[in-house]
Parts: sequence; structure tokens; C-alpha cells
Amino acid sequence: MRGGESILRALTACGVDTCFTNPGTSEIYLVQAFDRVPTVRPILALFEGVATGAADGYGRMTKKPALVVLHLGPGLANGIANLHNARRARTPLLCVIGDHATYHKPYDSPLETDIDSLAKPVSNWFHRSLRTEDLVEDAMSAYNATLRAPGRVATLVVSADLTWTDHPGTTVPSIEHNPTQVKPAWEENALEETIKALRSGESCTLLLGGPALEEKGLLAASRIANSFKAKILCEMLPAKQQRGTGLPALERLAYLGELAMSQLDGTRHLILVGAKAPVSFFAYPDKPSYLVPEGCTVHTLATADEDPAGALEAISETLGLDPATATLQPPSNMDLPTGRLTPETVAQAIGALLPEGAIVSDEGNTSGIFVYQATAGAPRHDWLCLTGGAIGQGLPLATGASVACPDRKVLCLESDGSAMYTIQSLWTQAREGLDVVTVILNNRSYAILKFELARLGGGSPGPIANHLLELSPPDLDFVSIANGLGVEAGRATTAEEFVVQLKKAMAEQRPYLIDAILERS
Amino acid sequence: MRGGESILRALTACGVDTCFTNPGTSEIYLVQAFDRVPTVRPILALFEGVATGAADGYGRMTKKPALVVLHLGPGLANGIANLHNARRARTPLLCVIGDHATYHKPYDSPLETDIDSLAKPVSNWFHRSLRTEDLVEDAMSAYNATLRAPGRVATLVVSADLTWTDHPGTTVPSIEHNPTQVKPAWEENALEETIKALRSGESCTLLLGGPALEEKGLLAASRIANSFKAKILCEMLPAKQQRGTGLPALERLAYLGELAMSQLDGTRHLILVGAKAPVSFFAYPDKPSYLVPEGCTVHTLATADEDPAGALEAISETLGLDPATATLQPPSNMDLPTGRLTPETVAQAIGALLPEGAIVSDEGNTSGIFVYQATAGAPRHDWLCLTGGAIGQGLPLATGASVACPDRKVLCLESDGSAMYTIQSLWTQAREGLDVVTVILNNRSYAILKFELARLGGGSPGPIANHLLELSPPDLDFVSIANGLGVEAGRATTAEEFVVQLKKAMAEQRPYLIDAILERS
Repeated sequence: MRGGESILRALTACGVDTCFTNPGTSEIYLVQAFDRVPTVRPILALFEGVATGAADGYGRMTKKPALVVLHLGPGLANGIANLHNARRARTPLLCVIGDHATYHKPYDSPLETDIDSLAKPVSNWFHRSLRTEDLVEDAMSAYNATLRAPGRVATLVVSADLTWTDHPGTTVPSIEHNPTQVKPAWEENALEETIKALRSGESCTLLLGGPALEEKGLLAASRIANSFKAKILCEMLPAKQQRGTGLPALERLAYLGELAMSQLDGTRHLILVGAKAPVSFFAYPDKPSYLVPEGCTVHTLATADEDPAGALEAISETLGLDPATATLQPPSNMDLPTGRLTPETVAQAIGALLPEGAIVSDEGNTSGIFVYQATAGAPRHDWLCLTGGAIGQGLPLATGASVACPDRKVLCLESDGSAMYTIQSLWTQAREGLDVVTVILNNRSYAILKFELARLGGGSPGPIANHLLELSPPDLDFVSIANGLGVEAGRATTAEEFVVQLKKAMAEQRPYLIDAILERS
Repeated sequence: MRGGESILRALTACGVDTCFTNPGTSEIYLVQAFDRVPTVRPILALFEGVATGAADGYGRMTKKPALVVLHLGPGLANGIANLHNARRARTPLLCVIGDHATYHKPYDSPLETDIDSLAKPVSNWFHRSLRTEDLVEDAMSAYNATLRAPGRVATLVVSADLTWTDHPGTTVPSIEHNPTQVKPAWEENALEETIKALRSGESCTLLLGGPALEEKGLLAASRIANSFKAKILCEMLPAKQQRGTGLPALERLAYLGELAMSQLDGTRHLILVGAKAPVSFFAYPDKPSYLVPEGCTVHTLATADEDPAGALEAISETLGLDPATATLQPPSNMDLPTGRLTPETVAQAIGALLPEGAIVSDEGNTSGIFVYQATAGAPRHDWLCLTGGAIGQGLPLATGASVACPDRKVLCLESDGSAMYTIQSLWTQAREGLDVVTVILNNRSYAILKFELARLGGGSPGPIANHLLELSPPDLDFVSIANGLGVEAGRATTAEEFVVQLKKAMAEQRPYLIDAILERS
């Protein structure tokens, strides 16, 4: 068996069924093997950032890794920003990078690069295969590395000669899946410490993140909070949060450090449940980076690498809390908006029309901030955030989530600036016939940077700086761009038009883009 | 003076007048300083790969660095592929990467990354500034590093707090420009060795590359070759070659190792003049990576880091060669093509219509191979290649070359697959009103990969692999995409239509895109 095929067969045995790729010559024996191992579905991306972001979306929804195949150092480089986001999301993701043949590397041919140096910052696990006969084991080791709970990015570098060499003795064992849970589910004394804090009578806040944001964690947290008059907050950028009618609704930690500090104000015990202690997204002159209030004690009930939802349930059971005491979000039954198209009316329309089982990929940035609140009482859905802050995630993430969950509607909230990073995603959505609605919150500017300039004490931008933060002229025409990439699209300039567009998009099962031209503020 | 402003003032003193950027919050004090230092023209890119590729194009044409400002690790990552190409091109290019504030980094906020590990593989010079008061010197050191002949990529990482801190004593010295030429122009004994080889009576080939490909080098090489019946070849992927009527025309070393070996067949002395000994672009089973024929002696007259054109002139002078003996390319006066639109008829049309002083950014790949030959007798022009093989260079490179040379027509030869890597470039071309004509050689596939699969012994791709190498369905509609990005565009499906489109595009001074739908072979 040639090495390229043995990698695919090994991963198939592990359960890998999807590959996002933009391959090159070094990976051609992996490409060729797709016809021999047809249980893996290869999905072509026009740019590597689409492939890595899609694998992140797929992994967040399925909790198992998709394979990503990338071409040498430059192909990897193009995918790094979304690997960064996936690493921050703790998504299981398996990256195979084709390198030059081992004996070719010393010749420093044009594409030769230091792949190791580029890959390591975004990989939790990294290995370079040395022999064709090791590829089955290496691929399986990489797969297992991705499943270290809750998920990891594993990168395997494979030289082209290893993939084209035939190793007659190759056998692929059948495997029992035992996602490795290296850490214990939680520490017993962390449970006791948390209960002690809750019983102290002092103000407690549960900060939920990572795997705590699934139903059982949310329900247990709500029971605990109600029992002890504690507050619950959701981390700023959750990888996946289950939300909507019938689940406890969470307030999310604000992007703005000042707001986050006011959310935490008065807290004497901050109990971390799958979340890290809150820090400011950026630093600002004379403002703290660490947002925990003075005099507040931080307790870690369970990290994201443990089982934070299970730990919350264990507390609830230990204390004998009544399952019926969780606060469940009632349906909001929002009215449809009319009038001007603003971030608020867009949010209202989405709150009214989001269907049961939707998946929201949220890269709405400044213009999207009202949608989260407006959808609290929408039907049950999952909410995926820009975990690593590297823009250009929303469209690929939506693409991969739709591949993972073809029967669910995916809504991608995008801003105009971020959308242009990985707009090529639309073509993959068209090619694969994915049920994704993209809403471009089009304000014709990098609004967040103007805001940040003022916040940083830089005042209003001068005319040159201001022009540099404007995305017009020329106006980006997302309807034309989407059509050019094979995706039908429509434009809305009023709330009524937006509602018509969104209803149309929600009624169909195929990719559609709405260019929502927001009123300039 | 705040640190952000002192960086800009220092670079202005050095002669920097152009900045390509997609900035973020960490760089906001550099952005703010643009209004205080208006001699630097900031140009916005919608994606970092556009900024780095444009800086490469600018640097190749002006021989001085443009400034590129990037945002943290992910912003850098998005620009790495074209930094790789720039490093291979030996382009002077200055990258400033904004990092989190020094005191913020330990908090591991979402965008925190190992910038150093990402930057070093594509940087010839790397430094992380430590104090605001060092920024003037650090920026000047970075600038000087870019000018180590013929050019280098220098990367300076500056933490946000250094840019917002005010350092009252900042002064920016005025500077004499002395591009550092670290190596000697050439080695005297290399001259003697070369002359000895030429006089040996054995078959000699001059392989020209890098700075040898300018007029004086070409003329001297032609005189030498004519005098000794030597052959001249041009390296496979020159950063910039001066070409056209009145200059010696060069045969270029082929991408295919087999062809390159036949070009070198019989050579007993390979004389390297600004080029490296030829190696295969990729490795192939049972084919050599090193392409120098057996029994051939390799002589280095001068490296690209020395003065290869000067060395050729020195030989010509030493030997007293008559300047009139160079072979000058006559005008080709090609007819306009008719009939089917194929790579050949596209090439013929461009050969007939390329205007005087054009700059060609060549990322035409498989479909573009005939254009080089067809333009040998076109009016004088410069030819820029994909030096590092990382696709997605052509459109940004054309953008930057046009910023550098606003009075010259830039022709960007693009293939459909490569174009989709950095298609955002078109928006910058529209915004800046650049005189760039983009020709998309649209064959609806990654044709080169099908070709490589066969070459690698993988035979014809199976149906799954074949689909993965097809860029259709859906067809990419580059007219729609260009229009959506603010660039006028037209489609051609016959040679006659292509000629009409190309004439129109050449007659105007603004960005235009031609979607050339090639017949499927």
C-alpha cells in the first residue's frame, strides 16, 4: 500500500469521514487515494483559511476531527489564522501537511520553508513522519491527540516520498474509540471548595465556558445559582453554547473591559467552570488587563479540559437540588421589525425568524452585538463564536458546521470587513449545496477600529486615518461577489426588505447571502 | 513624541513613502500617526496577503522598501505566503507587526500568539523592540536591513504600549542613504575562472538570475555568449527581468525538470550569474532533484547578493568585447489572433498589444506558458515571476507594482485557481485607481495538479480526485466578482472577443479585468 493511502485508511479506521483541503503537488498521493478510500468525503476550498475554518466548524459540531490537507509551508501559513481560532476553541482538528520529499529538502527549491516553526504555535501536538511504514501509527497518534478532551489541534507533516512509497506489509488495525481524557473529570476538593464558597453567603459568580455550555451544564448551573442567589456569566467567546427556549439564558461577559468589570462588580467568589479568569481582549493605557475585581477569590471548579458540566451536576446532586428549579427561557415571540435597517432591527428580525435547531456562526462584531440578546428566546440553537479573535472565521466555520449537520439551518452573521478575509467560502457552500444563510452586516467600515482608537485615548481619527478605516469607496457589492462565487444573494436597505430576504432564505435549503446595508450612524 | 509617530518619522527620514496595511487595535497608534506624517501614503488592503504581496511588487520596481503594517500573529500569518515569495525574490520589504502591550502578553488573551516563531522563517532580519526610546533606531536598523543587496525582508515587532507611550526626547536624525552592500561586488578569481572556462573551447552556459537580468547585464551576457558561442539561460522564476525589443531575449529554464535537463544537455561549464544551480521545483520518483548534467563543472561568477551584471560587464571589458556584438531582439509585430480562445491565442494577442513600458505580473501557470515567448519581441517591459511558488502572488504584486510606477501599464496574468487566493486585491486597485489589467486564464481547474499527478506516476486521477482538482461546478464568474469589488470587467470566449477586451483595457488608465474563458483541452 502506498503511504498516501495508508494515512487515509488509518484515519478512516479511526472514524474520520471528512477532509477539507486545498492540495498541491506534495499531497497528490493523498488526493489520489481518495478514490481508493471513498468513505472519506473530500471537500475543496479555494483558500486554505477556508479549509481550516471549516474543519473547526465541523469539529465543534461533531466533537470529532475532520482531516485538513495543506500544501507545504505557504499552504499551512494561509490556514494558520483559523487554526489559531480552532486551538483557542479546543476543537479536535487533524492537519496533515505535505512537505517536499525528504531528499529534496536540502536543495532549497522555491517552496522550501520551515514548516515546523510555522506549525508549532497553532498545534497542540506536532509530529514529522520519518518512514512510510510509520504512517499508520503516526496518523492514529495524531487522531488520538485531537481527542484529548475537549479537543486539540494535531499536525502531522508527511514528506511526499513517504506518500508515494509502497509499503507492502501495511495493515490497518480496527480500533476501539477511547477519546483520551487525560485529566480527571474534576478535582474532588474543587467541588468542596466551590460548595463552601456558595454557602459563604458572600456574592458568587459562576463563569461558564467550554463544555460547561451544554444543556446539562446550563441546567445544573441555573439550579445552583438560584439556590444560592449566585450570578451566572458566560465566557466572552464560547466555542459553542446551547441556547434558546427551554434552556437557561446566560449573560455573556462583555468585550469591553469596563463593561466586563461592571458585570463582575461586587463578586467575592468567582467560580470558574470551563472558563479562564477574565482578561481584557486588548490592553489599554491605564486600564487593567486582569478583570477580576480586587478582593475577589477565584475558584476553579473544573477546567475546560476536565468535565465542567459534570462537575456542576455533581454539585447539584450533592446538594440535592430540585431539577425543576432551573430558570428556563420562555419563547420570546418577537415582532418583526419595520423602518430603518440598523443593528437593532437586524437583530429583531433574526430573533423573530431563527428556526429550531439553527447553528449561528457569529462574526458580526460591532454590528452584531444585539443579535445575541435578541435570540435568547428563539427556538433551541447553537451559538459559535470567534474564539481566537482572528477575523475571517465566520464564513468557513459556517461552512464546516453545515457539512457536519446537513439537516440544520446555519446562520452566518458576518461583518463586511471580516467577510472579505475568507469570502471564498461561499464557493464551497455552493459546490456542496450547503444550507447556510449569510447575513453581511454591511456598515462600510472597520467600525471597531474607530471605536478602539477613541478608547485607546487616540481621540477621533484624522482624515487620513479615518479613510484607512473606511471600507468605501468603492462600496463592496456582496450580491455581485456572492453571485460570482455561485451563491444566490439579495440586498436589504430597510427592515422590511431584510425580513423579506430572511424569510426567503430561511424557507430554502441552500446557500443564500443577504447584503444588509446598515444605516450609517 | 508617541512611539507610533516616531516609527513613521524615522522611516520617512529613510525615504519610506508607502505603507500597505490591514491594521488592528494593536497598531492603532501607527494608524493615528499617518495624519501627523502625511509623507507616507497608507494603502488599505482587505487581507494581509494583499498587503505583503503589494509591498513585494513595490519593492521589486523601486528597489526600496514599502512598509507593511500587520496585526499580531494571525495578521502576520495571513501575509506569510507572500512574504515567503518576497524573501525568495530578494525584495526590500519592511514589516512592522503590532503585538499586545508587553504587560498584557502573559494573560494569554485570545489573539496572543508566538509571533517570533511565525515571522522568522520568512524574515532575513528580525527584531522585537523593547523600549519606546529605541523605536527610531530599531526602525532605521530594520530599514537598513532591507537594503542589504539586492534586498531583504526585515520584520520588527512592536508592542502596543511602546507605540502609545510618549517619549519627549525623541529626535529623528536626517540620514544619508547608503544601501549596505555587505559582500564585494564580485570575486576577482571568479572572473578569471569564468574567462578560463569560456576560453576552454568546451560548451558553456551562462545562467542569469536576480540583478543580472537588467539591461547592462543582459547586454554584456549577450556579447560574451556571442564571442564564445556560449548559451544563455534565464533562471526559472526571476524576480524581475527586463525584456522586449532592443534587448537580448533569453530562453528561460523550464519548470519541468526533464525539459530543464534537455536545455542544459551537453553543457560542460555552467556559469552562475546571480542564479543558483538549477534544482527541480518538486521531487519526482526516480527523477533527479539536482539538474546540473553529470560531468558539468559549476562556476559562480557572482551571486545575486553581489553585482552579477557588473561582473558580466567587467568580463566584457576585460576581454575588450565590442558593445555592438550583442544580439538585440527585433520587434515581432505579431498579428492579432482569430478563432478559438486558447492559451496560444491569448498569448498572441498579448504579444501584439503589450504597450511600451508595461510591467507583467506573471501568475499564469499552465495556461500562461505561451505568453512569455509571445512577448519576447514586444516593446520594452519588465517581467515579474512567482519567485517562491506560493500562489496568490500575482494580483497583489501587480497592485504594488502599479503603486510604484503609476505611469506604466501593469498586466497581471492570472489563472483562475491562483486568482481566488488574493482576489481582494482588486478592491485596492479600484480604491487607488490603479492602471492594472488583469487577465484571468480561466480553465476551470487546477490543471497543473492533474498534470503533476500523471507526472508523479499516479496515472489519471479517479473520479473523486478529478472532481477535487476541478474548479467547476459552480463556475467562477470573475466579471461578477470584479464588479463586486469595484473593478469593471468583461468576458471573452473567442480570440476576437479577447482582442476587443484587451484593446479596451489597454486604452484606459484604470483597473480592468478580463475573464478569458479558455477552451477546455
